[in-house]
Parts: sequence; structure tokens; C-alpha cells
Amino acid sequence: MSSKLGHMVDDIQIEVVYDGLMNFVYIVKSFGGSMVIKQALPYIRCMGDSYPISKQRAKYEAKALQIYASICASNVPQFYHFDDSLSLIAMQYLEPPHILLRKGLIAGTQYPLLAQHVSEFFAQVFFHTSLFSNTKSDHKYAVADFSGNVEMRRLMEELAFGPFEGSKYITWTSPQLDFDVKELQEDINVKLQVSLLKSIFCERTQALIHSDFHAGSIMVTQNSVKVIDPEFAFYGPMGYDIGTFLRNLIVSYFSQDGLVTPQDDRQEYKIWLLKTLEETWNLFQEKFIKLWDEHKDCCDEVKTKYMQDVLHDALGFCALYLIGSVIHVGPVEDFESIDNVSKRIECERNTLNFGRMLLKERLKFSSIGEVVSCLQQFMDQHSSIILSRC
Amino acid sequence: MSSKLGHMVDDIQIEVVYDGLMNFVYIVKSFGGSMVIKQALPYIRCMGDSYPISKQRAKYEAKALQIYASICASNVPQFYHFDDSLSLIAMQYLEPPHILLRKGLIAGTQYPLLAQHVSEFFAQVFFHTSLFSNTKSDHKYAVADFSGNVEMRRLMEELAFGPFEGSKYITWTSPQLDFDVKELQEDINVKLQVSLLKSIFCERTQALIHSDFHAGSIMVTQNSVKVIDPEFAFYGPMGYDIGTFLRNLIVSYFSQDGLVTPQDDRQEYKIWLLKTLEETWNLFQEKFIKLWDEHKDCCDEVKTKYMQDVLHDALGFCALYLIGSVIHVGPVEDFESIDNVSKRIECERNTLNFGRMLLKERLKFSSIGEVVSCLQQFMDQHSSIILSRC
Repeated sequence: MSSKLGHMVDDIQIEVVYDGLMNFVYIVKSFGGSMVIKQALPYIRCMGDSYPISKQRAKYEAKALQIYASICASNVPQFYHFDDSLSLIAMQYLEPPHILLRKGLIAGTQYPLLAQHVSEFFAQVFFHTSLFSNTKSDHKYAVADFSGNVEMRRLMEELAFGPFEGSKYITWTSPQLDFDVKELQEDINVKLQVSLLKSIFCERTQALIHSDFHAGSIMVTQNSVKVIDPEFAFYGPMGYDIGTFLRNLIVSYFSQDGLVTPQDDRQEYKIWLLKTLEETWNLFQEKFIKLWDEHKDCCDEVKTKYMQDVLHDALGFCALYLIGSVIHVGPVEDFESIDNVSKRIECERNTLNFGRMLLKERLKFSSIGEVVSCLQQFMDQHSSIILSRC
Repeated sequence: MSSKLGHMVDDIQIEVVYDGLMNFVYIVKSFGGSMVIKQALPYIRCMGDSYPISKQRAKYEAKALQIYASICASNVPQFYHFDDSLSLIAMQYLEPPHILLRKGLIAGTQYPLLAQHVSEFFAQVFFHTSLFSNTKSDHKYAVADFSGNVEMRRLMEELAFGPFEGSKYITWTSPQLDFDVKELQEDINVKLQVSLLKSIFCERTQALIHSDFHAGSIMVTQNSVKVIDPEFAFYGPMGYDIGTFLRNLIVSYFSQDGLVTPQDDRQEYKIWLLKTLEETWNLFQEKFIKLWDEHKDCCDEVKTKYMQDVLHDALGFCALYLIGSVIHVGPVEDFESIDNVSKRIECERNTLNFGRMLLKERLKFSSIGEVVSCLQQFMDQHSSIILSRC
């Protein structure tokens, strides 16, 4: 492994990365090279040993990184080494200008290749880890293997469904949003949709999903997109990852009105966000069907219905997390970065109510273009309310 | 284990059961007691070593029998012993008058408690092996455990979906049914529905299912119902077992017209079959919701939608197997027992076409009562055709 440091290990520099919520992360540099070392301890780093959780997660992250590398190497950091006894992974250091997509979105930076790369990653990984490409036996063994990642899956379920199940950890901006939250919590159709999505999340073993595919798990430059941190990986519904990603773009879209400055009205950025949202799905669909056509003969009706179902799953999970961006366990950086309190509350309210609508009405959308139009109409109606209140 | 034979093992009688297609089955009797010994060899018994298959299936059968015994002991044979190295299970011998339900149905025997027992078995087993009762972690470990039963699952997939995927093993009554089969095979909506059901079968880990729940896996008397042979067991959709069972009743219903004798017009039996069909679902639904209410607080809308989805899955798998009763790998005893060829063909055609309709229209049924009415109407219309042709 020292070859990655050009065998120059006498004078190495180690830098602690403080961003990691779950694990300890170090950047190791020498004159000959660099790498990242990520170590899982048997608890969640940011909560200390009051929140114990299996360090086995490192094993699943290492497995997933290697699977990703075999399918879509250009979109993940290179994997160097895994030490099971130390729960430690060594991998490529993604040098600046790589930054977390979340920080890029807040800064208002456009990434012209984002949709292209993310859709490629989704299409390749989902196709090649599903029954489309795997033999039935291999698929079942892989499902069984990742089923062991039980604790991380439970944690993800708590994060995803906790806001709807009266988790004691959740908070929201109170008292301003109390009415909206109460209305949501009493909405029978919301309960119904949440229970359907929970079944899909807990019981559907469609493909290897990252399961924590938010803007903090993606590093970007103008030319590259790298997916990191697949420690929650398991066999689940494709729509979960896709929905989590779409939700990031929508949260960013809703938070733009709070980030307007005299120099930048953020209109252009909003257009880019919607374009990226639309392109990500459309390119994914196109690429996935292309892979399908290359591997199997199938009629158009089956393909159309299949993709429609994945879209509806994605919109459902997206909606779940839009709501979870407002009724949440921890702070959401997109909204936290809005200084003006009343603007922030309106951004949150829009996100919450759009999420609620999308959760209930998702089966009515037959294309991502319709979702984008709906999002624009929703904003047009609510922007006037924001303007009149500010 | 010799206690089951009253420790009188010097003078035991061993009888070979020739019915077993997959395994070697022996009835062991002494003056002190009896038991059944079932042994899996690494191939399918009726096909010899030309069809190798893992003898691991015995391990999964033993596991499933023990789980069933812990949940619903009165509806399974008592489990005595499992020997892994010999792939051998010892269990209770179900003495006469126990017979296979299939033979009872062909003989036209009514079992007044059948719906009561089967619905109880379904409700208890599905509830207690699903996320309703299991903790999330336990559920995932159980799913992983049964995921190892890969070969049996692959075999079941071939049996269930082979008729729609051009399996080389399938046959039908040719040339008489060629036109009906061709029409079915070219029906795009059939392809679509089959692909949806295949996703559900392969990817949904809802509860521990038997997965071979036909009338040859159920032994009955007037007072008891015992489920046997769960060697195909895995975590799958509840609707699969329910649908397989309902299909047996419907195939029996359709075959009655071919079994009419001057002494018995079979009308009364047809009424009993439909009553049992309706009661099995309705009682299952009632019992399942009762368990749900005892364990968790939940709104009616969620419960209604959940049960509706299970019904739609069940009708889908039922339809798949109705078609598979006519376009099949092996002979179907219900039809084989009809001597009059033209009557048999009409029974098969009715089954095929009703199955095709049900496959495509299943989401339109909101209760089992509607299915029964539809079945009666279908028969009324087609009986006149049969009469005019005979």
C-alpha cells in the first residue's frame, strides 16, 4: 500500500477531516503521493459512545466500493486496501478542487456534467447489480451477503421514516411551522403513502443501493463526479437512491430564494437546478433502457411500465426526504445557511408542502418534465406569498 | 428419537411412499409408534441424477417446519429430528384418513374446516414472520438465512414463469389449444403482468412463504389440515402462497364439469369450492387484521390498502398458475382424471382463458366476492358453449 505514497513514508503528513459524522477520516500525504484512511469505530463519531453501532459498516463500505469500481470505476475513488481487524479502508484522496456537492450547491456553483455522471452511475450500478445482469443465484447470494448490514439499515430507516413515526429526536422550526406539521401528521393519506414506501424500502431487493445518496456523499469538480461513503449499502429499491438525489436538487431549489443577494437573484441557478433534475432522470432512463436492450429482448410496454414504477418510487422517496428536510433529526445545511429567519421559514414551508403533495400525488406524474412544471407552478404561486410577507 | 417408536425398534416395518417427486419418503412403524423419514438426495427423485439439485433443501425444510411448529403447531406434522449429514428429516406420520387435499378434491370430498385452517395458518405464519412481528434486525437475518435456499427458488421460478418464457419443457394439449396458447403468448399485457409478478416474486421479502402451497402439499381429514413439504421456503410475497392455494380451488372448480357422473352432477361440490375460496380469503383478512390490531395502532386506510395489495398479488399469482395448469411442465392430476377428451379440453380452455383475464384485470377486483361472481358468470357463459359442443 505504501506504493500509493511513492514508498516515501518517513515524512508523512496526516490531516484530520472533521466533516465525517460517522467515522474518523484522515488525509495522509507524503512527497510521493497521498491517500485517505477511513476508520469505523463501534459508535457514531459525532455522538460518541452514547450511540453504539457496529464497526462492520466498514466491511460493507469496502465491498460496495469494490463493486462500484468494477462497474463504474470513473465515478468512485480508487479503492486501495481494507483491514477488517481495524475496520479501516484506504482509498484515493480526492484532491481540491473536489468539494462536497452540498457545499457547491450552497455556493451556487453549476456543474454542467452532474446529470450525465450521476445518471451513468445509477444506470450502470443498478443494471449490473440487479436481476437484469446477475444470474438468479448470484443475486440471491449478494442479497444475503449485504443483508448482514443490518444496523446501518435500521439507522437509515430511522432517519427516513422517523419523522412520520413520532421519533423523539425530530425537531422543526417551532412555533412557526407547528400548524403545517400538525396538518401533515394528521393526514391519513400521508400515513398510507409512508407505509407503502416503507414496505418497498424494507422488503424490495431490486439492486445494490448506496442508501445515503445525498449531496454530502458526492464529491464534484467541473469535470468529475465521485460517489463516496457507501457504508449504508444494501439490496433495496433503485428509486431510493434516485429519490434521495432528486430531493437534494429540490431542497436547493427551494432554498435559493433565501440566498438571493443584490448581486445575484439566483434565477439562473434555479434554472440550472431544474435542468439537472430533469436531465438526471431522463438520461438515467435512456441509459438503463439501452443496457436492457443490449442484454435482453423485451417489449416496449414492459420497459415503459418498469421505468414508470422506478420513477414513482423515486418521487415517493424524494417526497419523504423533502419532508424530512424540514421535520428532521439534524440541521439541514441548505436552510441553515439562510440568515433571514422569515425567508428561511418560507423556504422550509414550501419544501414541506411540496413534499406532502408529491408524496400523495406521485403516481399521477408520468414524466419528470411534469414534476418540473409542477415545481415551477408551485413556486410561482408561493413566491407571491413570500413577496407579500417579506 | 426411538421414543417415537415406543423404543420398540427391533421389529420395525418400513414402507416406501412412491408419491414423492423430489425426495425419498419412508413410513416407519413399530408396535410402539410410527414416524415418517424424508431424505433429500442431490437430485430430483422423479428425474434421477439427470437433474441435480442441492440436498441443502432438507435443511430449509427442517428450519421451516420448526418455525411453523413454533407459530401454528396444529397445522403441521410434529418435527422430530434433522440430520444434516444425511439430509434427513424425521417427523410425525399423518395416519389415514389423512390424504392429500388434491386427491380429496378429485374425489369430490368436502372439507368443512379447510378455509378455517388454511386461513389461520396463513395469518399466523405471515404475521409472525413479517416485519409486523419481527424486529427489523431479526427480519433481515432471517431473510439472509433463507436466501441460501437458492436452487429451490430458481426451480420454483422456472415452474412459475417458465410457461411465459418459452421454457423447452412446457407442453399443452395440441393442436386443440394451439390457438388459445398463441393468443396468450402474443398478448403484450400478459407479458407486462408477468414481468410485474416476477419482480414481486424475486425481490419482495415480505414474510416466510412455503412457496409450493398446492393441494399436494396439504394433508386433510374432516377435522384437520396439515401443511407439509416446505422445502422451497424463503422470504417472499404472502400473495404467492395464497394465490397458489386459491388456484387449486379454481382448477378443481373448472374440472368439475369433466367429472360429472349420472349419480352426481357436481353442482353441490362447485358451490362448496366457491364458498371455500371466498371464506379462505375473508377469514385470512379478518385474522390478519386482528393480529395487526393486537400488536400495533394503525389507521383503517393503511390496513385496507395493505390487504388490497396482498389480494391483488394473490390474484396475480393465482392467475399465473391457472395458466400454468394448462401450459405446464408436468401433467395436472385434476385434468388428467377427466376421461372424456373433449370435455377435458374445454375445462383446460376455460382455465386458461379465465387465468388470462384474471392476470390482466386483477387490480379491478376489490374483494374476493367479486372474483367469485366473475368466476360464476364466466362459467355460465362457457357452459352453454360446452353443452353445445358436446
